[in-house]
Amino acid sequence: MVRPLGKESRCSIARSLEVLGERWTLLIVREALWGRTRFSQFREALGIAPDVLTDRLSTLVEHGVLQRRSYRAEGSREREEYVLTPAGHDLSYVLGALNAWGDRYRPAPAGPGSRYVEESTGAPVELRFVSADGRLLDVDDVVPVRNAAAEV
Amino acid sequence: MVRPLGKESRCSIARSLEVLGERWTLLIVREALWGRTRFSQFREALGIAPDVLTDRLSTLVEHGVLQRRSYRAEGSREREEYVLTPAGHDLSYVLGALNAWGDRYRPAPAGPGSRYVEESTGAPVELRFVSADGRLLDVDDVVPVRNAAAEV
Repeated sequence: MVRPLGKESRCSIARSLEVLGERWTLLIVREALWGRTRFSQFREALGIAPDVLTDRLSTLVEHGVLQRRSYRAEGSREREEYVLTPAGHDLSYVLGALNAWGDRYRPAPAGPGSRYVEESTGAPVELRFVSADGRLLDVDDVVPVRNAAAEV
Repeated sequence: MVRPLGKESRCSIARSLEVLGERWTLLIVREALWGRTRFSQFREALGIAPDVLTDRLSTLVEHGVLQRRSYRAEGSREREEYVLTPAGHDLSYVLGALNAWGDRYRPAPAGPGSRYVEESTGAPVELRFVSADGRLLDVDDVVPVRNAAAEV
């Protein structure tokens, strides 16, 4: 279910949150990025109520973040699993940003549970703003601007 | 109000969403990044119910994203405004990621309402994963990994 956010319409942040802002949605995407695909895997990993999980998965399929795919485990009937689309995979940026922010400002007493690494080297990566000509910028160098005459 | 997300504990994404995952919270931060500081400005810009706004602002203050500051407009009594802390300002990464994702996958018919630019040049910036030695990576080069023995 997608609830439009009141006056919001043109702002891409608000439009993203219409799909992603529900309580569990980004955690389901996190699990999918970790390779989970099955209803039972999501349910077990998140401790989420089945009806809520069903609703969130439908929203994510409807908006092209996940795709349903049939599979058949040996000796079982055919079932459905959920795999990330390219749009879903691109949520790595959102989750990477949340991960970094949480590591820094809401650190867990037991230390971070996960991190983003370069697949080929296993070395940690960082999310950075980059200028059009490829310079790495600091967060203080960057500002959000409204487009002209935008009613966001 | 912060609602812990069930089994979640060590995962920084989940810990961030405990503070930021409420319906309006990231839009309030968006407004703050655009320079809004006053209750009435947030209310008007977002069309949000006053009691909900009060609750969300308190959560953001409690968790160090916003800071209360007194101000006195000429001829008025003293009031409070809300300014971003460094932790709040660092949410630029999260909002920049949501903005880019929405631009790409949930484009508004009227075009994007805002974008992130380099302050000194006004040129658009991009959010990228960067390796430890400064190479720009593609999203396909990056994976999230669990820390050893992490119960996230």
